[in-house]
Amino acid sequence: MTASASVPVSVPALPDGVDPAWLPPEVFRALGSRRTLISGTGPLVDTVHGEVADACARFGGEVVTAARAQGAPCDLELELEEDGDPDGLGDEGFALVRADGVTRVTAARQAGLLYGLFHLVRLGEAAFQGELARETHRPALALRMLNHWDNVAVHPVMGQVERGYSGGSLFWRDGLARGSRDELERVRCYGRLLAASGINAITVNNVNVHETEAHLLTDRVGEVAAIADALRPYGIRTHLCVSFASPVVLGGLPTADPLDEAVAGWWAETTRQVYAAIPDFGGYVVKADSEGQPGPFTYGRSHADGANMLAAALAPYGATVHWRAFVYNHRQDWRDRSVDRACAAYDHFAPQDGEFAPNAVLQVKHGPMDFQTREPVSPVIGAMPNTRLAVEIQATQEYTGQQRHACWLGPMWSDALRFRPEGDEGPGVGDLARGGGLVAVSNAGDDPFWTGHPLAQANLYAVGRLAWQPDADPRAVLREWIELSFTPDRTADPARLRDGLWAVLDGSWRTYEKYTAPLGVGFMVQPGHHYGPSVDGYEYSPWGTYHFADRDGVGVDRSRATGTGFAGQYAKPWAELYESPSTCPDELLLFFHHVPYGHVLHSGETVIQHIYDTHFEGVQEAEEAGRVWAGLADLMNPARHARAAERYEEQLRSAREWRDHINTYFFRKSGIPDARGRRIY
Amino acid sequence: MTASASVPVSVPALPDGVDPAWLPPEVFRALGSRRTLISGTGPLVDTVHGEVADACARFGGEVVTAARAQGAPCDLELELEEDGDPDGLGDEGFALVRADGVTRVTAARQAGLLYGLFHLVRLGEAAFQGELARETHRPALALRMLNHWDNVAVHPVMGQVERGYSGGSLFWRDGLARGSRDELERVRCYGRLLAASGINAITVNNVNVHETEAHLLTDRVGEVAAIADALRPYGIRTHLCVSFASPVVLGGLPTADPLDEAVAGWWAETTRQVYAAIPDFGGYVVKADSEGQPGPFTYGRSHADGANMLAAALAPYGATVHWRAFVYNHRQDWRDRSVDRACAAYDHFAPQDGEFAPNAVLQVKHGPMDFQTREPVSPVIGAMPNTRLAVEIQATQEYTGQQRHACWLGPMWSDALRFRPEGDEGPGVGDLARGGGLVAVSNAGDDPFWTGHPLAQANLYAVGRLAWQPDADPRAVLREWIELSFTPDRTADPARLRDGLWAVLDGSWRTYEKYTAPLGVGFMVQPGHHYGPSVDGYEYSPWGTYHFADRDGVGVDRSRATGTGFAGQYAKPWAELYESPSTCPDELLLFFHHVPYGHVLHSGETVIQHIYDTHFEGVQEAEEAGRVWAGLADLMNPARHARAAERYEEQLRSAREWRDHINTYFFRKSGIPDARGRRIY
Repeated sequence: MTASASVPVSVPALPDGVDPAWLPPEVFRALGSRRTLISGTGPLVDTVHGEVADACARFGGEVVTAARAQGAPCDLELELEEDGDPDGLGDEGFALVRADGVTRVTAARQAGLLYGLFHLVRLGEAAFQGELARETHRPALALRMLNHWDNVAVHPVMGQVERGYSGGSLFWRDGLARGSRDELERVRCYGRLLAASGINAITVNNVNVHETEAHLLTDRVGEVAAIADALRPYGIRTHLCVSFASPVVLGGLPTADPLDEAVAGWWAETTRQVYAAIPDFGGYVVKADSEGQPGPFTYGRSHADGANMLAAALAPYGATVHWRAFVYNHRQDWRDRSVDRACAAYDHFAPQDGEFAPNAVLQVKHGPMDFQTREPVSPVIGAMPNTRLAVEIQATQEYTGQQRHACWLGPMWSDALRFRPEGDEGPGVGDLARGGGLVAVSNAGDDPFWTGHPLAQANLYAVGRLAWQPDADPRAVLREWIELSFTPDRTADPARLRDGLWAVLDGSWRTYEKYTAPLGVGFMVQPGHHYGPSVDGYEYSPWGTYHFADRDGVGVDRSRATGTGFAGQYAKPWAELYESPSTCPDELLLFFHHVPYGHVLHSGETVIQHIYDTHFEGVQEAEEAGRVWAGLADLMNPARHARAAERYEEQLRSAREWRDHINTYFFRKSGIPDARGRRIY
Repeated sequence: MTASASVPVSVPALPDGVDPAWLPPEVFRALGSRRTLISGTGPLVDTVHGEVADACARFGGEVVTAARAQGAPCDLELELEEDGDPDGLGDEGFALVRADGVTRVTAARQAGLLYGLFHLVRLGEAAFQGELARETHRPALALRMLNHWDNVAVHPVMGQVERGYSGGSLFWRDGLARGSRDELERVRCYGRLLAASGINAITVNNVNVHETEAHLLTDRVGEVAAIADALRPYGIRTHLCVSFASPVVLGGLPTADPLDEAVAGWWAETTRQVYAAIPDFGGYVVKADSEGQPGPFTYGRSHADGANMLAAALAPYGATVHWRAFVYNHRQDWRDRSVDRACAAYDHFAPQDGEFAPNAVLQVKHGPMDFQTREPVSPVIGAMPNTRLAVEIQATQEYTGQQRHACWLGPMWSDALRFRPEGDEGPGVGDLARGGGLVAVSNAGDDPFWTGHPLAQANLYAVGRLAWQPDADPRAVLREWIELSFTPDRTADPARLRDGLWAVLDGSWRTYEKYTAPLGVGFMVQPGHHYGPSVDGYEYSPWGTYHFADRDGVGVDRSRATGTGFAGQYAKPWAELYESPSTCPDELLLFFHHVPYGHVLHSGETVIQHIYDTHFEGVQEAEEAGRVWAGLADLMNPARHARAAERYEEQLRSAREWRDHINTYFFRKSGIPDARGRRIY
C-alpha cells in the first residue's frame, strides 16, 4: 500500500436559485453519515474524495485515505486497484460488494471509482444494509455524449441555442465563453450532474457551425479549453463541432477537398494545436452536406472520404470523428413522388459500409426522418455491420412539446435501443451502437431549472442511464430519477408524491402522441419553429415531409410493392412486417401506408375514429396530469412546482389546439362525423 | 415686376449605378432645348430654376429670370403669380396655356410651379407644339403621402424595412440616419422622383415603432430634421410615426392616458421641440392598439380620445395626426365563427364618426382585411362622412409578389379609388379621401433600381399620379410611366418597346390574381413572410384569416342572412349586391360566400373548374410575359433588363408552385378532376 493519498477537490456550489436536479444534498445522506476509506490517487479520485468529504461534512461521517487508515473500521471502502485490471472492469467499470458490515467499491481506473460513487448515491441506505453479493458494472457504450446545439453568437432566428427551450447557453454569453467564477462554477455543476447520470463526453457548439463558431477550432480554441478544464474533474471530455469548410474559411486554402494533401495537412496541424490546448480533447463532430452545411460532395468525394480525412488527423491522439448521417435532399420537389426522404440516409451510407476508418463513427439519428414523436428505427443502424455507429437521440423536445409539454422520452428511446434490426435473434440497437455510442442533443441551458420544464430533467438524466445500459427498463430509470430528484422519503407523503410523479410522467409520451400527429405520420407542425399543429405546414415544402391526406385517406405508401420501397431497407422480418397494412403496427401505419379513413386498425377502430378518439383522450389525459400536478404542491420546492404548473397551463392550451386543429382538418377532409358526437369545429 | 430673381439650386446627382427611374436625362430634352423665363422667388422656385438650368446645360437651351428678361423672346414662361391667387390654383395647382409660340405655366404658390414643371416634362415636345387652350391642374388630394416601414435598428426577423423587398432603408444605416454626402444626395434624388410623380409627404420610419425608433421623436429628432432638409427642396414634408406609449417610454410618465393632463402636456411640449427642429414638420402617424402596438384601449379610452389628444398637440402648427384604422383582434380563436376580422374596423370606428378633431385623419386601408390581391373596398370609407379620411394602399408588394413578381397595381388602386360606397350616384372613394389624402406604403429602398424589380417602379410612380387625380385612367398613368422611364422614341424600335412593356404590365395584376388565391378568398400565403402559397397557412391561426375549405366547398359566409353580417356594413346597393351569391361579383365570391365546388359562376364555370382554369392560365400568361421581356433586351439599359429577367425566372418558378399547390390542394379536397385533364399532382 502506497503512502501517497488523494486530495479532496471541493464540490462545485450551485449558484443561488439554481435547481439541484437529481443531486440535492439529501441524496448523499447515507454516504455522508458513514466512515469511508478512499484508496488510490489521481484527479478523479480527488473528485471522489471531495464528494465524500462534502457529504460527510454535511451528514456527520468521516473520510480517511489509505495512507492513514488505521483506527476504527470503515463502513465503506472506495478502492482504486493497483495491479492492473484483473476483473476486466475496464476504464469506467466498478465492482460492488458488501460483507461483514463493509461496503466495498473497487475500480481499475479512476473514472470507474467516480461512477461507483454515484451508484452508491443511487442506492442510498440500501448500499449499507445486510450483505450484497459482488456485482460488476460496466457501461455498455464507451461513448455517452451530449451534443449542445449552442451558438456563440446569438442567431437572429434560431436564438442562442438552436432548438433550445431552456434559456441561453451554459457555455457562451455575449459572443464569448462564459468566464466569470459563477459561470464556470455552474459549468462544473453541470459536469457533475452529467457524470452522476453516466455522461462522459460533450460538444459545446451547434452542429450547424456558423461563421463565429468555426473559429473555436483555431484562434478561439482557448475558450474551448477553459470549458474542458471545468468539465474534466467529472470525467467528461470535450468534443467540438467543426465546419468541413474550415480549411477554406479559417485556413485560407483554395479548397476543402478531403483528398487534397494540403487540406489533410491543414487538419493535421490544426488538430495538433487543438491537442496542445486540450490534451484530452475528444474529437470532432461534423454535419456535412446536410441542410446547407458544406461537405465532401462539393468536391465529388464520398462521405467516407470526408470522414476518413478527419479521422486521420485525430488518429494520433486516439480520438474519433463523429460524422452525422443526417443527409438528405432538403430542396425536394413535393410533386416528385419518386423521392422519399426516409430512404436517404440508407441510400447514402449503406453502400459505404466498411469504408470508414476505425476511428470514424457514423452518427445516425434513431429514426429515418427527424426526431418525430413516433418513427420506426432507422434502417441504417442494421445495415452497416462494418462501421462504428453512434445512435443519436434528441433530449431537447423540438417535436415533443419543446419543454412546455411534459413528455418523458425514456420509453421512446428505450424502444429504439431495444429494437433488433435483424429480428428477434439478432443484436439490439444498443449492441450495434457499441462502437460509436449514444449521442443526445442536450435539452439543458442556463435556465434555473436547467431544462425549462423541471420534469424535462428526467430526459436529460435518462440519456446517461440508457447510454450506460441501453436495455435498462425505462421505468426503473424513471423511478431512480424520482427518488433522487424529489427524495420522497423526506416528504410528508412519500406515496402520494411517488404516485403523482409517476402518473404525470410514465405515460406522458403516449399522451403527447395521442393529441398530436396520428399513427406515425409525423411533421404536422408549424413550419420553422415546429411548435403547435399545422397539418399542411410541411405538406408542399421542399423538406420531404408529406402525409398526402386527401378526401379519401392519408399516409405515405413506403411499401416495396406500390410505394417508395423504404420498407425494403429493413432486414426480412421487419421488411415483411412493415410491407402490408395488415401486419404493420398501428402506431406506424401512416408512416408506411396510405390508407382510407375507413381502414380498420388492429385495435378494431377505423383510422378516422382513431384520430378523433386519441385526440379527445390525449387532452383528457393532459388535463388529468395537470390536476395531479396541482395536487403535489405541498410536497416539493415551491419554485419547482410553480414552474411546472405554468407549463401545464400552456400544455393544456396547446393540447386543445392540437386536438381541435387535427380533428377539424380531418373532419373537413373526410366528411366523416365522430361516432360519439363530440364537438369538432 | 420685382428686380429680385431666383437662384438655381443644383439638381441632385444620381449616385453611380443607381437607376434614373422615370427621370432619365432624355425626358428633359424638350424643355432643355428652349429659352425659358422664370419669374418669382423662393426656395421651390430656385429648385425649378435649377431643373431648367440643368436641362438647358444638357440640351442647349437657355434660362433667364424676370430680372433680366430683355432680349430674345422666350419659348416658355414659368411664372409665380404676384397678386394672390385670382384663378384659385391653390397651394399646388398651376395653369398651362400656349399661344403665339409661347408656352406659359403660372402658379399661385411655389409648389404649383414645381408641379407645372414636371407636367411639362411629361408633355415633352407636345408642350411646345401649336396652341394649347388654357387648362388648370390642381391635385384632388392635398395630402399625397408615402409611409416607409423602415426601421433604424435592423429587426432580427423583419429586417431593416418591414415588408421591404428593395434592399435596406434609404434613410437609415447602421442604426443612424444616413449622413454621408452620397447618401443624402440619394435622398434628394428620391425626393425629386417623388415630386415628379406628385408625392408631397413622407414618413421615414415604420408604423410599428420599436424601441430605437421611438427616440426619433425626442433626442434623435435631429436625424429626422436632416432628412427633412434633404427632401424639402422638392416640396416634400416629413412626418413621423410615433409610439402612443411615448410619454411612458420616452417621457418617464407613469401613464400614456390621453385624457391625462400631464400626458397632453408632454405631447404639446415634445411637439413644440419637434417644430423647433423641423419648422415644416408634417405631423404624426400612429398605429395604436393594433397587432401589439400600445394605444388608448389600455386606459379605457377611445381611439378618438387618443387621436384628438395628439391632434391638439399638432393644431398650433396646422399639422395633422394620421390615425390608422387597422385595428382588429389578432389573437382570435379560429374556432369562434362569430368573430370576423373584416368587420373590425367598421365596428371600431364607424360609431366614432364626428368625434375626431378637425386635424385628426383616420387612415383606412382600402380593403377590410390587409392588402390582399383582391378585396372589396373597406366599408369604413363610406361610413364616416364627418371624419377626415385617408385611404391607405400598399405599394410594397407584401401579398402581390414581393417585387419578385411583376404586378402592376394601378388598376387595383384605381378600382378602389373609383368605387362609390353609396352607389352610382354617390361620391367616389377618391372624393371621400379629400380630407385626409392617399397614403401608400412605399416599395422603395437602397436597391440600385429603387424597388428591387425595375418594373415595380411603375407602382411607386402611380401612387403620386393617382393621389393627384384619383379618377385617372390607370392605363394613362402606365403609358406615361413607360414614356418617361424607357423613352421609347429614342430607341431603335419604339413600337416593339411600347407594346412589349404594355404586354408585360397592363394585365399583370390579373395574371397574378389568377395563379394565386382564387375568387377573393385571400391569405393562402406562407405564414410570416407571406411569399408563396400555403392554403392552410393561416387557416387555424389567431389572425382572423380563414377560408373554411372542406371537402364540399370553400369561402367565408359574410352575408347578413346566414354569415358574419359583414355585407351589411355597406350602403344598400352594395349590401344587396354582396348579400347573395347570385349577385355577388365572381371575383369577390369567396370573400362573401361559402359555396360548393360545383357552384356555377357568372362566367358559366364551376368554382372548382375556375380554380383549375385560372391557375393554368395565370402561369401561361406569366410565361408569355417572361418571353416578351426576354425579347426587349436590345431596347433598354442592359442592367435594368437583366435585373427584371432574373426576377421573371423566380416569378415563373413561384407561379408554377402556386398553380400546383392550389390545384393539388383543391383536387385532394374536392376529388373533382380537371375537366380538361391537365396535370394535377
